[in-house]
Amino acid sequence: MKTTLPPSDRTRVKRIARNASYEQDQARAIVDAAYICHIAFSDGYGAHCIPTACWREGDYLYIHGSNGSRMLQQLVAQDACVTITHLDGLVMARSAFNHSMNYRSVMIYGRFEEVDEAGKRASLAAFMEHLAPGRQAEIRPGNDKEFAATTVLRIALAEAACKVRSGGVEDDEEDMGVAAWAGILPFTQLRLAPQQDPACQVAPPEYVRNWAA
Amino acid sequence: MKTTLPPSDRTRVKRIARNASYEQDQARAIVDAAYICHIAFSDGYGAHCIPTACWREGDYLYIHGSNGSRMLQQLVAQDACVTITHLDGLVMARSAFNHSMNYRSVMIYGRFEEVDEAGKRASLAAFMEHLAPGRQAEIRPGNDKEFAATTVLRIALAEAACKVRSGGVEDDEEDMGVAAWAGILPFTQLRLAPQQDPACQVAPPEYVRNWAA
Repeated sequence: MKTTLPPSDRTRVKRIARNASYEQDQARAIVDAAYICHIAFSDGYGAHCIPTACWREGDYLYIHGSNGSRMLQQLVAQDACVTITHLDGLVMARSAFNHSMNYRSVMIYGRFEEVDEAGKRASLAAFMEHLAPGRQAEIRPGNDKEFAATTVLRIALAEAACKVRSGGVEDDEEDMGVAAWAGILPFTQLRLAPQQDPACQVAPPEYVRNWAA
Repeated sequence: MKTTLPPSDRTRVKRIARNASYEQDQARAIVDAAYICHIAFSDGYGAHCIPTACWREGDYLYIHGSNGSRMLQQLVAQDACVTITHLDGLVMARSAFNHSMNYRSVMIYGRFEEVDEAGKRASLAAFMEHLAPGRQAEIRPGNDKEFAATTVLRIALAEAACKVRSGGVEDDEEDMGVAAWAGILPFTQLRLAPQQDPACQVAPPEYVRNWAA
């Protein structure tokens, strides 16, 4: 089912609004393509922008960290904004003013909530499964002390807005005769060959063999 | 000259402090490797985390946008936090708890200032030179109307902290016998083949020919 969220006062995109989308499918896809997000929140020192690992289950974005983390303590006490941005390319137009970038971004507003003990263990296993399918069964799982030191928070994807630019150059008609190269200079996030720990004698499992395939 | 900034109350890294650095050279290098940053600031709706293009000149990080941008209006009226994160790999340890990521990040705190008219034109040219050396001479430059609609802001790299993790897996001694694959699953930002605008008859200049070389 394709669901479109109504924009809130915080998520209604005003700047280049034609690039905006409130489709939940798109928000999910942008989160799933990410390993990290940036989180904005405030404390007595002002605004902070902290990068942290993230993953998705259902319509929630999850993060984790140490119980002692100042950020995690703040995030259950105030609203935050979580942003993920994938940069896809430079848009080289014929005029300076029409240069742009291709990107996929999502901004999520709301309040994080703490995941309870049973949910925490399941969520951390889901995170590992997302990073490397099958790996959870190979590693030494968390022990009680480690789980006790770890907090998992989640935020709903309910108040979210995507902004995406893709496609080609958009020059003004009067600039089409300018003798400048025009086009897209694209990027991608490439997976490089795995670097096995010299002390590791275990044959690479499927998620390692497929990493850079 | 290698300069180390003393950490402020805002930039002193507390979480895994061994990964922290206050070296200006490292902050400059992390900014120079980036095309975008994320900026945290607050307004009547709470905290926002906005991605935007950035570049460096000297010991300042520059951004630009439309005069009408709510973010740019807020950023000269309050302190902000600018963060850049490059993700370099997944650290696959033998225990769940010792998994990590390799990354290079910088957080910059302070107040943005508006760049004046002459400085604005020079800075936007420097931005283009950073994106594509030599391109500024080919394109149709900004006209008075376009410059008048554009604001350039800069923030000093004076109150900045880097946090970097690199290298291999760090397992606890008692986990070294666990039969899990251990190592790094690395990423890089790869430049893909340029996509020339179908309407463009101009031969690719050097910065295009070298893009994915």
